[in-house]
Amino acid sequence: MSEDRRSAACLAVGSELLGDEKLDRNSLTITRALAGYGIAVDEKRVVGDDVDQIATAIRDLLARHDLVVVTGGLGPTADDVTRDGVARAIDRTISHSEEVERWVRDRYASRGREMPVYAPAMARVIEGSRLLLNNRGTAPGMLFDLRGRLLVVLPGPPWEMEEMLERDLLPELVLWNPGAVRVRRTLVLGGVFESDVEESVRHLYDRFGRENVSILASYGMVRLVLSAEGEEGSARHHLDVMERAFKAVLDEDLAGTDVTGLAEVAIKELRQRGQTLATAESCTGGLVSARLTEVPGASDSFVGGVVSYSNDVKEHQLGVPLPVLVEYGAVSEEVARAMASGVRSRLAADWGIGITGIAGPTGGTEDKPVGLVHWAVAGPGGVWAEHRVFPGDRSVVREWSLNSALDLLRRRLAADAT
Amino acid sequence: MSEDRRSAACLAVGSELLGDEKLDRNSLTITRALAGYGIAVDEKRVVGDDVDQIATAIRDLLARHDLVVVTGGLGPTADDVTRDGVARAIDRTISHSEEVERWVRDRYASRGREMPVYAPAMARVIEGSRLLLNNRGTAPGMLFDLRGRLLVVLPGPPWEMEEMLERDLLPELVLWNPGAVRVRRTLVLGGVFESDVEESVRHLYDRFGRENVSILASYGMVRLVLSAEGEEGSARHHLDVMERAFKAVLDEDLAGTDVTGLAEVAIKELRQRGQTLATAESCTGGLVSARLTEVPGASDSFVGGVVSYSNDVKEHQLGVPLPVLVEYGAVSEEVARAMASGVRSRLAADWGIGITGIAGPTGGTEDKPVGLVHWAVAGPGGVWAEHRVFPGDRSVVREWSLNSALDLLRRRLAADAT
Repeated sequence: MSEDRRSAACLAVGSELLGDEKLDRNSLTITRALAGYGIAVDEKRVVGDDVDQIATAIRDLLARHDLVVVTGGLGPTADDVTRDGVARAIDRTISHSEEVERWVRDRYASRGREMPVYAPAMARVIEGSRLLLNNRGTAPGMLFDLRGRLLVVLPGPPWEMEEMLERDLLPELVLWNPGAVRVRRTLVLGGVFESDVEESVRHLYDRFGRENVSILASYGMVRLVLSAEGEEGSARHHLDVMERAFKAVLDEDLAGTDVTGLAEVAIKELRQRGQTLATAESCTGGLVSARLTEVPGASDSFVGGVVSYSNDVKEHQLGVPLPVLVEYGAVSEEVARAMASGVRSRLAADWGIGITGIAGPTGGTEDKPVGLVHWAVAGPGGVWAEHRVFPGDRSVVREWSLNSALDLLRRRLAADAT
Repeated sequence: MSEDRRSAACLAVGSELLGDEKLDRNSLTITRALAGYGIAVDEKRVVGDDVDQIATAIRDLLARHDLVVVTGGLGPTADDVTRDGVARAIDRTISHSEEVERWVRDRYASRGREMPVYAPAMARVIEGSRLLLNNRGTAPGMLFDLRGRLLVVLPGPPWEMEEMLERDLLPELVLWNPGAVRVRRTLVLGGVFESDVEESVRHLYDRFGRENVSILASYGMVRLVLSAEGEEGSARHHLDVMERAFKAVLDEDLAGTDVTGLAEVAIKELRQRGQTLATAESCTGGLVSARLTEVPGASDSFVGGVVSYSNDVKEHQLGVPLPVLVEYGAVSEEVARAMASGVRSRLAADWGIGITGIAGPTGGTEDKPVGLVHWAVAGPGGVWAEHRVFPGDRSVVREWSLNSALDLLRRRLAADAT
């Protein structure tokens, strides 16, 4: 950690976060919130519901970082032992607070429930803590100022954690770290490989610092995250300079700036033109429309779609001619084109997307291996099709297909505008 | 950590894993693989591309755990410094290997590419390591036997990591930890709240051990993961006893066992009956069909769906009568019913699902607030509808809707069978 910036760490507590299903996602929210104050998360940990492990981790992290944010294990059940771990780590006592118990009882009452017998466990308060009330749940959090280092302990449920983070921690940081901010900008690229992006922007690292550029690749989409730190005005200016330099190199592979992905790029572009889109999906099974409708306000531009898993649906709902299905097979350029055109005309949209492929794990043949996907875009000026054999498992092939089709749409929209 | 079992830790290296977008997902795969050998992951960490931090974390983890799995930072670029961190942590030297360089060159050649100038960085080999070749990528991994403790270092890309984990690490564990296994079973529940499940199974914790039961809730679906450890035969027997005890309590809320979710439950049940399903989605925008088609072999039972974002599509593709849309509004029980029945008949399926709602963040009114969702299931014996106002943001409301609709389908399928 460099000396000119504050360093933070996240500790998530909960044995369920050490299984093979659930990840600690709170750290993402915390990282995003802290970045606005020029504070970087330099380390993350997850430990189980064990007093010793929690105490050891907190002690370790407080020795290395200026701010430690602990989430989880504050509830009333027997395995919620974070309070005890915190008290042990910083060598403080715990006592029962009548006032907090009353507050907890009121919380239950306000939802028409009686306070369960085990709930008073949440009214155990650590010496010297500032109590953070939980307006979206019940378990209170706490904040400690330890000679300039901050230790914050928040409940695990994201909905509760987020509100307390914004309300209680962030105002603290304004005082704690005045002036310094970290600003960032995300360039989203479609239709490129991570290694090619890396190759083409490599020479800019020396100029702007390798640590200020992150490349995140996700199967057909690459995100370049640029960041700059310092006093707000100069940081923003520096970021503008940086963005121009990167844009000059990336050229038409650049799909958008500060967008969540290619779906948002498409929705924004369509809305700007007052045009509409419809989708026809086979192997992606609705993933493209699901992604498009994640974008708030998608209904202005996205009219709907057809998921045509069976040939019957391709024929009757999309008007793919039976002879085409028979001659070329369901996974073919001809069918992708007919799906895109069919959904465009049936749903009366300006643009149509068609995707058909073999996502696996079975269903491949020598001619048409698992991973083969055809996609097409139909628009006012014609129909365009592409295909590829994607590597990876079912979910990876679907993700590649989704991004490839949305990228083709974006490029056709851009070409159409010129 | 108890003394009678082996303990493991995962360390993910990469500054991109400390941003606000990407999480270390490799630890999930590693946890799942190790569980089969009776080894639990007791701690996870993420650190950036920094030699000091990597070395400190590895030293810490080796002091506390029997097995440490490190992923990421083995590539050829300047920020790939895991090798140096490992060497420092265990106090070993690094030297260049001509043999490995030749192998790396061959890997590039086999894909018709020339070896980049920076690639020989991957041929730096740590003293005393067993080299693990990477058949799906380029960067080799390594394994160290440190007086009975294992340190394994694998590349970050999941596709590469997974193959090396299975091929190189797991066979090692068979020798290392013979006999002991941890077996588990997942009970999936639909239409219930986590707190109610906790309440009803609480009394079983004493009998089977709190540490052998995890409750994972995800907006309309709850997973109870039961596990047992020991010699294989007795562990399995114990798990059977446990499962029976839990099932007796959960009764008809139990949707399935060892399934990934309610979509898999639906697909399996439909396939067993030789029946088919079609979906009509508004606010979920294709999420239900996307989830159904994540299940391999879904095409046997899922014929397709219509995403009817606009009223036009509801009317023309699903046959929702215009007067119904006008009188009750698009978000209403009547429209949900008409969507379910419409898609069932238009796509000639045995069952139809219809969902319409206001996912937010805007679009709510006093009568119909954000979060209001109506869903319906149409089947051979009738049409059933339910509704609720879900709390949470857009993605949370969509997830609740998805699970609620699939759970209604499951309950109707079960009722239909009796």
